[in-house]
Amino acid sequence: FRSKLPNTAISIFTQMSQLAIQHHAINLSQGFPDFDCSPRLISMVERAMQAGHNQYAPMAGVIALREQISAKVEAVAGIYYHPETEITITAGATQALFTAIATVIHPGDEVILFEPAYDAYAPSVRVFGGIPKPVTLRAPDFAIDWRAVEGLMTPKTRLIIINSPNNPTARVLTDADYEQLARIIRDQHCYVLSDEVYEHIVYDGATHRSAAHHAELREHTFIVASFGKLYHTTGWKVGYCLAPAALMAEFRKVHQFNVFSVNTPVQYALADFLGYRDEYLGLGAFFQQKRNLMLAALAATRFRVLSCQGTYFLLADYSAISDLPEHVFCQELTTQHRVATIPISSFYHKEINQQLVRICFAKQSETLEQAAERLARVS
Amino acid sequence: FRSKLPNTAISIFTQMSQLAIQHHAINLSQGFPDFDCSPRLISMVERAMQAGHNQYAPMAGVIALREQISAKVEAVAGIYYHPETEITITAGATQALFTAIATVIHPGDEVILFEPAYDAYAPSVRVFGGIPKPVTLRAPDFAIDWRAVEGLMTPKTRLIIINSPNNPTARVLTDADYEQLARIIRDQHCYVLSDEVYEHIVYDGATHRSAAHHAELREHTFIVASFGKLYHTTGWKVGYCLAPAALMAEFRKVHQFNVFSVNTPVQYALADFLGYRDEYLGLGAFFQQKRNLMLAALAATRFRVLSCQGTYFLLADYSAISDLPEHVFCQELTTQHRVATIPISSFYHKEINQQLVRICFAKQSETLEQAAERLARVS
Ligand SMILES: CSCCC(=O)C(=O)O
Ligand SMILES: CSCCC(=O)C(=O)O
Repeated sequence: FRSKLPNTAISIFTQMSQLAIQHHAINLSQGFPDFDCSPRLISMVERAMQAGHNQYAPMAGVIALREQISAKVEAVAGIYYHPETEITITAGATQALFTAIATVIHPGDEVILFEPAYDAYAPSVRVFGGIPKPVTLRAPDFAIDWRAVEGLMTPKTRLIIINSPNNPTARVLTDADYEQLARIIRDQHCYVLSDEVYEHIVYDGATHRSAAHHAELREHTFIVASFGKLYHTTGWKVGYCLAPAALMAEFRKVHQFNVFSVNTPVQYALADFLGYRDEYLGLGAFFQQKRNLMLAALAATRFRVLSCQGTYFLLADYSAISDLPEHVFCQELTTQHRVATIPISSFYHKEINQQLVRICFAKQSETLEQAAERLARVS
Repeated sequence: FRSKLPNTAISIFTQMSQLAIQHHAINLSQGFPDFDCSPRLISMVERAMQAGHNQYAPMAGVIALREQISAKVEAVAGIYYHPETEITITAGATQALFTAIATVIHPGDEVILFEPAYDAYAPSVRVFGGIPKPVTLRAPDFAIDWRAVEGLMTPKTRLIIINSPNNPTARVLTDADYEQLARIIRDQHCYVLSDEVYEHIVYDGATHRSAAHHAELREHTFIVASFGKLYHTTGWKVGYCLAPAALMAEFRKVHQFNVFSVNTPVQYALADFLGYRDEYLGLGAFFQQKRNLMLAALAATRFRVLSCQGTYFLLADYSAISDLPEHVFCQELTTQHRVATIPISSFYHKEINQQLVRICFAKQSETLEQAAERLARVS
């Protein structure tokens, strides 16, 4: 069998979550909450099923949901996307990313991405014959060197994948970053895929800036968002993609043959629930409290925490504790100290050891406190 | 923009369903029931959500569901698939088809498929740089000429896509067909993708034969199945793929970056519901009654119905009524007589006019009777 992904294994999130279960470890690896979503949202799904919304949704999504998303994006970010032609509901943000890449990438096309990069980007590019061109970001600030990006641009560069708030570096991009990006792709046949699934999870008064805030960039960009991250329902697998009409028409051509449509009752429920703005406008404050709890608790350990501007992840430096490579350290942390985390090296295409692990703090206070206690014993 | 699917439009199912809504037509085009699923199944989803099963499922699917599927396949078909390594839950059968094609097809690979072919197959092949090689089946029997298949085989033939019970021809493959297929791919680097979503919908005492019944074929085949077609929940978008462990390992590499995982509460509910065998063992009898009602009602029209062995579709010949090409005829049938159907020409890569339309009879008796009345007026 000639593998499409010869150098790819089962994702680090699956590996670490499985190891966590085997060793009864506290699972701070894969990014999902250990608390539940709103009971009101659940009852809205129940109502939709009972009302008989159990057959195929329209291919692009239930129109009421697309209208609510359009209204939300306009109210929150001041950007307009047309519900009929510029919004498509997807089976989670991952499917939106994969489909956008499928839409743009022909064999031999080059794709610039930034490492550490979410583990799905590069293999998804390779599945379509694209060539990932990683730009390395360095701790502690992980800022993008736009001159390096410019240097990588060729006539074959077809896509640049950005992610802000960033998983795993917990950094956000600024208007100045988007200005640079717009300048670099100007007059190139190059598009942007902007993964903004943590858009509402920013801290210390920072605000999320979308790639679409830049009017010129908006016209070349696929924006990806997630209801799983917004509403603590990572298992419902509904997200969406925003793009200008011409790009969205191409996206839908692929989308219809990939999944055709997305869970209907969940779409109706989300359309109802999106009206309750407080449910997501409070998300930053909600997770900031958890981040602060974790920062305070980790201060009593030998882990040193890097600055965390957004997402529900933080990076912890263990160089005062161990010289082990990250994946070995994470293995031992899980099996011996029973706390599962993610080695940052998993987000790079080649071996690298910065002695950093990613910690997910989307957990109940008791979970975080118990984990911190265990981490305090690591020396 | 260089399109990945330059000659592909929005699918015929979306087009006809939209036209049906606009013209208040009875929608016998897209394949979904106009009646609801079991209330017990709905309450099982409710229970799963209330129990807190709202975060990421394991990438390959909830293990209880995979075990139930394994038990079902063994009990019903006498074939064993290992729940850990040979079964993966997908976001509907469409995603399983797309992912299997993604797993196998490299640019330049050839894929044999049979026309009329479900409209997703050929474009999905093209998205991955594959080259569809259609074999035309001719009315009225639509049998496969295996000699023609043999003649198309080259060292580049990587996949053969079959579909039984067949949408739209309503014919089933026999053990003799599978024997021919096994012989043809023997010692070739060629795999089989077997779309068996209508497996339980066969008529007149016929039994569904799976490609996996052929022990040799099983080792080279991806089987695709659908809970939407099984339980009248096409909008829940859960299906699955069966394949021998080595192929499934490759399938999962792609699956994890396409959707990662599938709706968790629905998976738990399906795991509970699969134990109730009567819910699906009666499916053939249930739809046979609807088919018979439709056959009887259409006897009073000028449409001539072709033999229907399985699926919830039948083909109707309108040559006694009109010379119009199928898509024009279907357009007029929808706008003037207010019954939406599917032109069979949509299932071919090139213009063809057999004066055949596909009628979906997964509808309540009253819907079918009302549609037949309208069709009786067409002359
Ligand atoms: C889709 S599993 C990974 C979840 C996640 O976003 C993460 O842990 O980074
Ligand atoms: C995924 S929409 C098409 C549904 C279907 O199976 C059909 O109508 O053939």
